[in-house]
Amino acid sequence: MSGSILGDLFKISTWGESHGKALGVVIDGCPAGVNLTELDIQADLDRRKPGQSPFTTPRKEKDQVEILSGVFKGKTTGTPISLIIYNKNQRSKDYSALKEVYRPGHSDYTYDAKYGFRDYRGSGRASGRETAARVAGGAVARKLLASLGIGITAYTYSIGPVTIEKTNFDKDFIQKNFLYMPDRQAAQQAEEYLTGLIKGNNSSGGKIECVVDNLPAGLGDPVFDKCDALLAKAMLSIGAVKAFAIGSGFSAAEMTGHQHNDFYNYNEQGKVIKQSNNAGGTLGGISDGSQIKIQVAVKPTPSIEKTQPTINRQGENIDLNIKGRHDPIIVPRAVVVVEAMTALTLTDLLLKNMTAKLENIQKIYC
Amino acid sequence: MSGSILGDLFKISTWGESHGKALGVVIDGCPAGVNLTELDIQADLDRRKPGQSPFTTPRKEKDQVEILSGVFKGKTTGTPISLIIYNKNQRSKDYSALKEVYRPGHSDYTYDAKYGFRDYRGSGRASGRETAARVAGGAVARKLLASLGIGITAYTYSIGPVTIEKTNFDKDFIQKNFLYMPDRQAAQQAEEYLTGLIKGNNSSGGKIECVVDNLPAGLGDPVFDKCDALLAKAMLSIGAVKAFAIGSGFSAAEMTGHQHNDFYNYNEQGKVIKQSNNAGGTLGGISDGSQIKIQVAVKPTPSIEKTQPTINRQGENIDLNIKGRHDPIIVPRAVVVVEAMTALTLTDLLLKNMTAKLENIQKIYC
Amino acid sequence: MSGSILGDLFKISTWGESHGKALGVVIDGCPAGVNLTELDIQADLDRRKPGQSPFTTPRKEKDQVEILSGVFKGKTTGTPISLIIYNKNQRSKDYSALKEVYRPGHSDYTYDAKYGFRDYRGSGRASGRETAARVAGGAVARKLLASLGIGITAYTYSIGPVTIEKTNFDKDFIQKNFLYMPDRQAAQQAEEYLTGLIKGNNSSGGKIECVVDNLPAGLGDPVFDKCDALLAKAMLSIGAVKAFAIGSGFSAAEMTGHQHNDFYNYNEQGKVIKQSNNAGGTLGGISDGSQIKIQVAVKPTPSIEKTQPTINRQGENIDLNIKGRHDPIIVPRAVVVVEAMTALTLTDLLLKNMTAKLENIQKIYC
Amino acid sequence: MSGSILGDLFKISTWGESHGKALGVVIDGCPAGVNLTELDIQADLDRRKPGQSPFTTPRKEKDQVEILSGVFKGKTTGTPISLIIYNKNQRSKDYSALKEVYRPGHSDYTYDAKYGFRDYRGSGRASGRETAARVAGGAVARKLLASLGIGITAYTYSIGPVTIEKTNFDKDFIQKNFLYMPDRQAAQQAEEYLTGLIKGNNSSGGKIECVVDNLPAGLGDPVFDKCDALLAKAMLSIGAVKAFAIGSGFSAAEMTGHQHNDFYNYNEQGKVIKQSNNAGGTLGGISDGSQIKIQVAVKPTPSIEKTQPTINRQGENIDLNIKGRHDPIIVPRAVVVVEAMTALTLTDLLLKNMTAKLENIQKIYC
Repeated sequence: MSGSILGDLFKISTWGESHGKALGVVIDGCPAGVNLTELDIQADLDRRKPGQSPFTTPRKEKDQVEILSGVFKGKTTGTPISLIIYNKNQRSKDYSALKEVYRPGHSDYTYDAKYGFRDYRGSGRASGRETAARVAGGAVARKLLASLGIGITAYTYSIGPVTIEKTNFDKDFIQKNFLYMPDRQAAQQAEEYLTGLIKGNNSSGGKIECVVDNLPAGLGDPVFDKCDALLAKAMLSIGAVKAFAIGSGFSAAEMTGHQHNDFYNYNEQGKVIKQSNNAGGTLGGISDGSQIKIQVAVKPTPSIEKTQPTINRQGENIDLNIKGRHDPIIVPRAVVVVEAMTALTLTDLLLKNMTAKLENIQKIYC
Repeated sequence: MSGSILGDLFKISTWGESHGKALGVVIDGCPAGVNLTELDIQADLDRRKPGQSPFTTPRKEKDQVEILSGVFKGKTTGTPISLIIYNKNQRSKDYSALKEVYRPGHSDYTYDAKYGFRDYRGSGRASGRETAARVAGGAVARKLLASLGIGITAYTYSIGPVTIEKTNFDKDFIQKNFLYMPDRQAAQQAEEYLTGLIKGNNSSGGKIECVVDNLPAGLGDPVFDKCDALLAKAMLSIGAVKAFAIGSGFSAAEMTGHQHNDFYNYNEQGKVIKQSNNAGGTLGGISDGSQIKIQVAVKPTPSIEKTQPTINRQGENIDLNIKGRHDPIIVPRAVVVVEAMTALTLTDLLLKNMTAKLENIQKIYC
Repeated sequence: MSGSILGDLFKISTWGESHGKALGVVIDGCPAGVNLTELDIQADLDRRKPGQSPFTTPRKEKDQVEILSGVFKGKTTGTPISLIIYNKNQRSKDYSALKEVYRPGHSDYTYDAKYGFRDYRGSGRASGRETAARVAGGAVARKLLASLGIGITAYTYSIGPVTIEKTNFDKDFIQKNFLYMPDRQAAQQAEEYLTGLIKGNNSSGGKIECVVDNLPAGLGDPVFDKCDALLAKAMLSIGAVKAFAIGSGFSAAEMTGHQHNDFYNYNEQGKVIKQSNNAGGTLGGISDGSQIKIQVAVKPTPSIEKTQPTINRQGENIDLNIKGRHDPIIVPRAVVVVEAMTALTLTDLLLKNMTAKLENIQKIYC
Repeated sequence: MSGSILGDLFKISTWGESHGKALGVVIDGCPAGVNLTELDIQADLDRRKPGQSPFTTPRKEKDQVEILSGVFKGKTTGTPISLIIYNKNQRSKDYSALKEVYRPGHSDYTYDAKYGFRDYRGSGRASGRETAARVAGGAVARKLLASLGIGITAYTYSIGPVTIEKTNFDKDFIQKNFLYMPDRQAAQQAEEYLTGLIKGNNSSGGKIECVVDNLPAGLGDPVFDKCDALLAKAMLSIGAVKAFAIGSGFSAAEMTGHQHNDFYNYNEQGKVIKQSNNAGGTLGGISDGSQIKIQVAVKPTPSIEKTQPTINRQGENIDLNIKGRHDPIIVPRAVVVVEAMTALTLTDLLLKNMTAKLENIQKIYC
């Protein structure tokens, strides 16, 4: 019943609700010797926080992170690293009207079914705000991966009907627009689409794509802790995510063996390369050294300022119009969460893979 | 590095390779008092086994299961249940030619990268054959769920370009055709499609859909062990699966809030029902009592009798033509595996959810 | 490598070093609906804190706990409960002289061997101070157990050669003396013994005994997660503990079957009682409903103001005299830690035991 | 509730009851490349099996082990290793009389309390027979440790009042006497003591000591997965064990700091040695490179041919005289079980420790 812990060797334990005093994460199992400061973590948090664009929640939170343990003279000590982010700008009075009602598309009903009652302020633990703790933990994982040359890049792949064009792909543009799209024209069209939706008190879904480069081959533990299986779990754990795909994804269902198989060959330097990458970077659930490519689908924000039929705790059918602050679109803020979850998953696999063969053990102990 | 164990309270530990002596599973944590015999398990295994149709591997295996422990006078004792299935029909001489080569689309390369070497006979542990152990374990989970009225039904949703029509949906037809499609016409078209592919030494992908009825509300442990996240992990752990979706899946990305939100209301009997089910049965990662609906995409079988370029262990680029027995399509045999993985995942969640609220604990101990 | 997480269903994740900013614990998996306030936790922390008696460290710490999440309107919500205790009185300048040396009886040497370097201030993570986080977590477990009538009482059984007499046993006296002994005369003698040792710049070991009443029968999961095995692990995880015994403990080695077997009988009310309790409350690793009785041995505090030969990082043999603040005896402050660890272990077993039989599952879901 | 799985990276999952068809273990997470054959495992099983001496159960079992998976051409593949031992000599008719009664000192009562009913033949899962599976798993762990020069030796330290003399210690004699004592005179006295007890239809307890040499420093994961804590859990999980001690054990309670601290110094070759070893090989829960020394106390066999008062399921107080086969002393057969549990615990710690510092990760991946 303790669902807030992730990982086997590189473990994170997250805590905190939208309107509680603070949020945080404890990282247990980070190897000693990794350089780490608040700045490393703040960078990723700054990409996630609300109030940054016309398309996200106006709630202003600095999301200032503080390291409380596990780091000494700028290096991780191998002991648990506790990170804390204080909530400054919760406005609890917005939610008392929602105490007894079950908002469509939100987890009010299911939290009550599970726990018997819930913290109804701003979705409590179910709030997207809890992802701040994940991003903080993910930043530490990322630091470790970066020290091995492993890079993770996620971006908005589509918003509603507007999809990026691979021919316009500009990696540097990702951080330069509110929608985190790597395609200037698509970003323009998407903004227009969203502006229209906001006028109609509506919201939009979208897709996020994430690639990983330089991941060593061998990561993943068949048969249940495969690399792609753990990535799927990590992605679906992000609120509002409805689907996951790796490589060819759903299109694989309509392909034939002739079309789908990726062919290996050694290039002139003797390095193994693939002529295509329908696999998406794994085979048999184990990374093959090529680029990992995954995609997730994000549903539209459920909170919309529109009257909707629903029910309340007293057994009545009612109409509901949700006031308060909410995102017209979640996708851009979820981009760094996708990176964080990818980093956490791959770091744990990287550590676990070290014991796969006896020669590694001998390298360390002999 | 021990990736063959699944679950927290209802745990399974699977073992066995394609050409080893046997396969099996140990179920640890099954509550005492569940009625269980070999017949319960054999039924599901019979749906999975090879050699049953013109569209699957000709290898003949009885897949006869035997219960070695954990059951006394027809009831589970609460102690570990060991199930074993002996391999009878492995033909090891087929594979010696493949000892040094890395077949495209198979995990030969990644297993070598991870472990340093591999059992090259019939894909060893990476063989689809290991799913027999999962199906055996899943049958026990399913028995427990059935005793609570929870039913799981999976079927082939599409093969290549041939998709079922919901208007032709016939649940009883699923078990009456080799392709496990619930639509007579689609099954016909799919057979024609496959017959053509076989002639061309080709293979096909497809999609499987799975629904769960009567699941209690409340199952799932935020934030990382959500019901949908664990289902995603379970599905992606099945070999050849490239994508997972729940409810609206990837189409959610193009929907708006107005379109996507499911509305609750109380019917005349005071029962909570939903007017639509884009959520697919969960909200905030917790089951809501409505039907769970998931889909997976399966890639085409990589082994095809066609010359393909690849590499070998000696650093050479070669051409390869794979003789031997293999499936032209995996999808139909994966249907019962999808049911098994769903059963295992939901049983574990069902048990974990029992401790969600103090009143449950008091019900048991006071 | 993540050794700071304990439990399977009722999990705690502790963090914090002696001279870091704070210490804390995240409790993940506490059922919703348990009444909880800071006062519940502060009571146990106040029994642990330093600076309370002439026999313990003069370091003054308020050990004020704060609940940061997981509680709403005085009840646990079922989401993670984060507790924090800020360090106020760390005096880091005391330790710079010890940066390069390995103090006898401390973990300086082993932490360096494991992690490559360490936070050398006040033993860092190895400091007894980390037990404050355990006590905070244990207080929550205890609240839950108390609601089911389960009581845990620990006390000092002996200090050096001074042992309590069962005939003088006075439960109420435990909280009335610094040494937490339940025997007025023994407490007197022990104080004299310790006063003598302090003069000689020496320290003492001792034993702690702990009893649990009203624990339901059935707790413990053979064969590896037995009740007594998990208690042993919990106790040996407390710093300075060198031994664990349950029931007859080491004396069982010299007993015969005739002497050791406890006989059951039904009393007049039909309740099962035992005529003796050499078992100590478990059989086959499962609780039998009678009193659990365990004992631990605690070594003398290693830090003593006496010149001792040791080594430093530079490969030299040196002499060392440790100035600074340290306990001449740990035992009294470890008493509440023993209670906390017992509470945590038994709460987790209590939750896990709920799924032992099908009838329990039916009680909850049907 | 799944208590039959041990370990985090090197995991074993055991199964099987005394009178079931077979017993076995699945080892998941053994690194690839370890040389392994049935002979490696059979050697340890032969030391455990019944029917070998006048002092142990006359039940004749070959305990022949078979490797069913996870090994290819004499080396572990990194995939799960399944080991099976068929029961040949169960005599079920011996136990029907015990169906309804709760034998003193056995777990009949607690298994019924937990599960609602039990396999009453020969103690079912609670039988000492299940340790055969542990010994099989432990033999694999031992193989891996031996390849790194790590050696584990256990022996009977005392039987009843007869204790070995360290001055008579003869390691080679251990395997040459039924009682596995390393002291010829003590073995003689102990045999006389036991012969007397057998005549009186009685049984005896004893102590087992175990030492580990050449264990690298650094093993153990504070604060809960310390090396000594995990060893304590492993030992208390062995049926009939009532106490655990490391190093000075219970005597530490009566020592002072002056007496207890072990002093380090560098010898002429620059190697770190200790002048004493009250610590028993760990500090702060982490191994320090010196000899690990642990002790366990084993209670007398509860099954004795003597009339004892007890209860039955029908609520009655009865007298019971247990016929059937049972050990007059367990200690000698538990010696190899202690070694197996030590090997399993330390192997898991050895693997987990590999990720303690970043430089190790760089050694493997750069």
